[in-house]
Amino acid sequence: MERKDIEEKYTWDLSTIYQNDKEFYQDIEKCKDQLNELASYQNHLCDDFDHFYSFLKTKDEMSIILNKAYCYAHLNCDVEPQNQQYQKMMATVMTLLQDTSVKLVYVDNEICKNESKVNHYLEDPRLQSYQYSISQVLKYKPHLLDDQQETLIAKVDGLADISEQVFDSLRLEYEDVEVNGKKETLNNATLNEFLKNKDINVRKQAYHHFFKEYKRFENTFATTLAGVMKKDAFYSDVRHFDSPLASSVFNDDVPTDLFFKILDKANHQYRHLFHRYNKLKKKILKIDDFYNYDLNIPLVKDVTKKYTIEQCFDIIDQALQPFGKDYLDIIHKARNERWIDFYPTTGKRIGAYSSGSYGTNPFILMNFIGDYNSLSTMIHELGHSVHTYLSNHNQEFVNSHYRIFVAEVASTVNETLLINYMINHAKDNQEKAYYIYEQLENCVGLIFRQPMFADFEHRLHEMAKNNEPMSSKIITDLYAKLNQDYFGEDVKMDDLVGWSCYYVPHFYYDYYVYKYTLGMTVALAVVNRILKGDQQQVQNYLAFLKSGGSQSPVDLLTKAGVNPLEDAIYDDAFHYFEDLLNQFETLI
Amino acid sequence: MERKDIEEKYTWDLSTIYQNDKEFYQDIEKCKDQLNELASYQNHLCDDFDHFYSFLKTKDEMSIILNKAYCYAHLNCDVEPQNQQYQKMMATVMTLLQDTSVKLVYVDNEICKNESKVNHYLEDPRLQSYQYSISQVLKYKPHLLDDQQETLIAKVDGLADISEQVFDSLRLEYEDVEVNGKKETLNNATLNEFLKNKDINVRKQAYHHFFKEYKRFENTFATTLAGVMKKDAFYSDVRHFDSPLASSVFNDDVPTDLFFKILDKANHQYRHLFHRYNKLKKKILKIDDFYNYDLNIPLVKDVTKKYTIEQCFDIIDQALQPFGKDYLDIIHKARNERWIDFYPTTGKRIGAYSSGSYGTNPFILMNFIGDYNSLSTMIHELGHSVHTYLSNHNQEFVNSHYRIFVAEVASTVNETLLINYMINHAKDNQEKAYYIYEQLENCVGLIFRQPMFADFEHRLHEMAKNNEPMSSKIITDLYAKLNQDYFGEDVKMDDLVGWSCYYVPHFYYDYYVYKYTLGMTVALAVVNRILKGDQQQVQNYLAFLKSGGSQSPVDLLTKAGVNPLEDAIYDDAFHYFEDLLNQFETLI
Repeated sequence: MERKDIEEKYTWDLSTIYQNDKEFYQDIEKCKDQLNELASYQNHLCDDFDHFYSFLKTKDEMSIILNKAYCYAHLNCDVEPQNQQYQKMMATVMTLLQDTSVKLVYVDNEICKNESKVNHYLEDPRLQSYQYSISQVLKYKPHLLDDQQETLIAKVDGLADISEQVFDSLRLEYEDVEVNGKKETLNNATLNEFLKNKDINVRKQAYHHFFKEYKRFENTFATTLAGVMKKDAFYSDVRHFDSPLASSVFNDDVPTDLFFKILDKANHQYRHLFHRYNKLKKKILKIDDFYNYDLNIPLVKDVTKKYTIEQCFDIIDQALQPFGKDYLDIIHKARNERWIDFYPTTGKRIGAYSSGSYGTNPFILMNFIGDYNSLSTMIHELGHSVHTYLSNHNQEFVNSHYRIFVAEVASTVNETLLINYMINHAKDNQEKAYYIYEQLENCVGLIFRQPMFADFEHRLHEMAKNNEPMSSKIITDLYAKLNQDYFGEDVKMDDLVGWSCYYVPHFYYDYYVYKYTLGMTVALAVVNRILKGDQQQVQNYLAFLKSGGSQSPVDLLTKAGVNPLEDAIYDDAFHYFEDLLNQFETLI
Repeated sequence: MERKDIEEKYTWDLSTIYQNDKEFYQDIEKCKDQLNELASYQNHLCDDFDHFYSFLKTKDEMSIILNKAYCYAHLNCDVEPQNQQYQKMMATVMTLLQDTSVKLVYVDNEICKNESKVNHYLEDPRLQSYQYSISQVLKYKPHLLDDQQETLIAKVDGLADISEQVFDSLRLEYEDVEVNGKKETLNNATLNEFLKNKDINVRKQAYHHFFKEYKRFENTFATTLAGVMKKDAFYSDVRHFDSPLASSVFNDDVPTDLFFKILDKANHQYRHLFHRYNKLKKKILKIDDFYNYDLNIPLVKDVTKKYTIEQCFDIIDQALQPFGKDYLDIIHKARNERWIDFYPTTGKRIGAYSSGSYGTNPFILMNFIGDYNSLSTMIHELGHSVHTYLSNHNQEFVNSHYRIFVAEVASTVNETLLINYMINHAKDNQEKAYYIYEQLENCVGLIFRQPMFADFEHRLHEMAKNNEPMSSKIITDLYAKLNQDYFGEDVKMDDLVGWSCYYVPHFYYDYYVYKYTLGMTVALAVVNRILKGDQQQVQNYLAFLKSGGSQSPVDLLTKAGVNPLEDAIYDDAFHYFEDLLNQFETLI
């Protein structure tokens, strides 16, 4: 569909950011002036309180405008990539962003060099909101290098992302899959459909045709995967961290323990629940030689309901009732003020996201096709948008940006409330079983599979740290072994399983995957309590959303009533999975 | 064929290096001890003359042994890659080499810090042979960084070669080519045969099937090609060179002028000769729409002679007569002492090379199949081996290693003497025309094509230096334009020509390609004079071979009687091509 054929109310309204191009370029000029002003503070940043304070204020002003301009350019590019005016805006912003990081590279070093002065400044009430962000800079002091080395490292950055760039650029093509004598196209999007097919030949063929391509290019993928691990190990080494993990959790401001707790819970203490689920699958499907490519066959007949956008908003209104009027009012605002671009159109970016900036509304890009997945994605992205809205309206700019770590909580809580609503409002047992099955699969992905990924990624990082060889044989042997342990003895592994690690983009994101598990675990704990009518939990949760990025993730989550360092939330999450599994067994 | 089925006299004799594994590992232990001793000189290297002198002597001793061990391991691995004993030896040597570069990173800095002391030491006759190598270290002083930054850069090295690794790992597969209704395999080896086919459909298909794969993966290749350019620009930047070219020629100890002189001669002054040759091809082949994939159709019927190894040695003996007995005696030694491993066997490395070390004989790996190309390769590699032998027997270790720059002269002179011999001893005009055609093609590759490559590579390096974008569109548009200018108006360019740059590994070798042109140009000048009976040229040339790496390439070549900074040798080389073209026109 072309953009011009879409009713206006289903597109986002970016005129709330800028009315025209002229306004955009006026802001760019303003930014450039402010950047030059900020650069002139070099060697004088900590001369006195006034210098320091006015620097911070000007920097915030500039950042707000620059983020706003970036938001306008990237949202427009994502729906109209061929429009050269928007491409030019994007290039303009990117150059300015690079310029900013080069010209302000001195700032952190000057703050650290003047630690006691700065701590003294922070006692002034005007700097109260800067406490957290500046404490983060000071904490980084042992990892900052002298200006010459920092400049050298800044130059290395341009070389260091080759592995990820190559991974992103490698687009494989796959042999067709034969279904009922007819050749059908296999690609990233259709693989999962083939794996749901009742015919074992279709599943096996799809799996083989798909992953044999990863085997064919194994040396390239091994090079890029080892490359990204070496990159992480390089930065951790030159910045004096004990390990790539230590470096990553430092940047997230969480303790290393958290990582190992999550792995221990999922990969050891509760893995038997996942094995039980796999055993049940094998039994229900009555397959003697049960292979990993058989795991996606649906256990329950698909509920092929379709929803209009209006119906989705109605269901979302119902599912999110527990949050109360204030929360729902923001969702209504999103609808009425046109924050959302709903339909897929020619050239539009695929997938979905929530974006926005401090000086704008939140915005959601969707590719809505009216199935349950569209509904679920919509409530997920709205979770992010409400989080952004509440954060921006309750925090000063410096504290408004929240980390991925807590971001996934806001979206997953909504998704979980939705599926619970669907389970509770199912019209019969079959529909109920369908939604429970959906949620079981969802849980498997987030609380079991991601920790296995995290384990794998951690071992690769350790190899890189210790300068051990990382050939494709070593990588794929390791991945095959982890998979066998993970799925348990009831599931046989296809010979190609080792090469399936080359398909996962998240290994290029520096210890990202375990954050999904945390998000899901916290979400399950929060939802569980809310559904039991715990009004305090609702208030704590809303307070958490309003806190943005004003504290460390652990402090923020503790504020929400869910301390991620305690065993309780993990135990609750895995028991929730166990309950669901029990329910499912009785229904099926 | 299996190794055990080959007659012993056609395999190389590595027992002249080590009789058994024990001897190898004894040398490794000796190296380790010497390395620890060398490391203990840190901060005391320039305490006094005796320290300095004994360090250099011990370092040479260690290097000779380490190179010997490396030689033994790599030669064995190349013919028996499955043998785990040899793989272990190789890994052992590689670890020790890495260790050496880390533990001795201090040396150059200490020499530079004590420049005046060191210059004083160099007045002692015992250090006479170190003059050149230490002057090279001191010349590098402006480009050395402090120890902290040097350590950081040493760590970057581990990340910096991802682009090249990915390029090496990407093995493409190509659609078959239909020849007379039969599908035939297309690959790196067969492409050129298809391009010689009389049927235009075969040529066009082969060209399209081959380069469309490079187009398919264009974003990956653009990433790696841009990546390697950025790497070179990074090193040139952080080491304070004006440009990647300046950095590269500095390392080769030649002036920047040399690079531009070669490009100017080939790409401007004499390009009309290449255009004339292409016009002649079009005329002889009678093709109205003459495309770039038509350029390889043979202009003369193939002379499909076969040679035994013994016949090859006889011809080589004849062709190299002008060098006299001493030179030929070394070739007889190569044969009698079994320096050469002739035949292709299962698992053996493909291609050909000459290797060896200061403490061993030179060794040649070949994949001899008895055609003219095998003969030509044999005389080429023997050129390297005699160069190595004479260098090792006339220079101390520190001056024995010669640069690629002069290496290609020694091999190309031999190849050129061979083809001249073949031209002069052709049994009829057709055979004569065949060898002239071979030599014309050879010249086109080395004195015309490589400078075009060099021009392309230089432009990419400049883009990287200036931080300009390098998308696949920009790269392939540039390459297509350079090709059209290069081939001239009589040759039409296929639409895929821009993507053919992704096929060339040499762009990953940091300004390598123009060195081929220099080698060929010098070789043509040398051979021309020798064949005219210039005995002084023979003596100068042999003296040059004996000089190894004791001076800068320009000084060495000037010694050989061919100053590469003067116009004369280029003019001679291109006039040689013109003469050959004139001869060819009268014969055809």
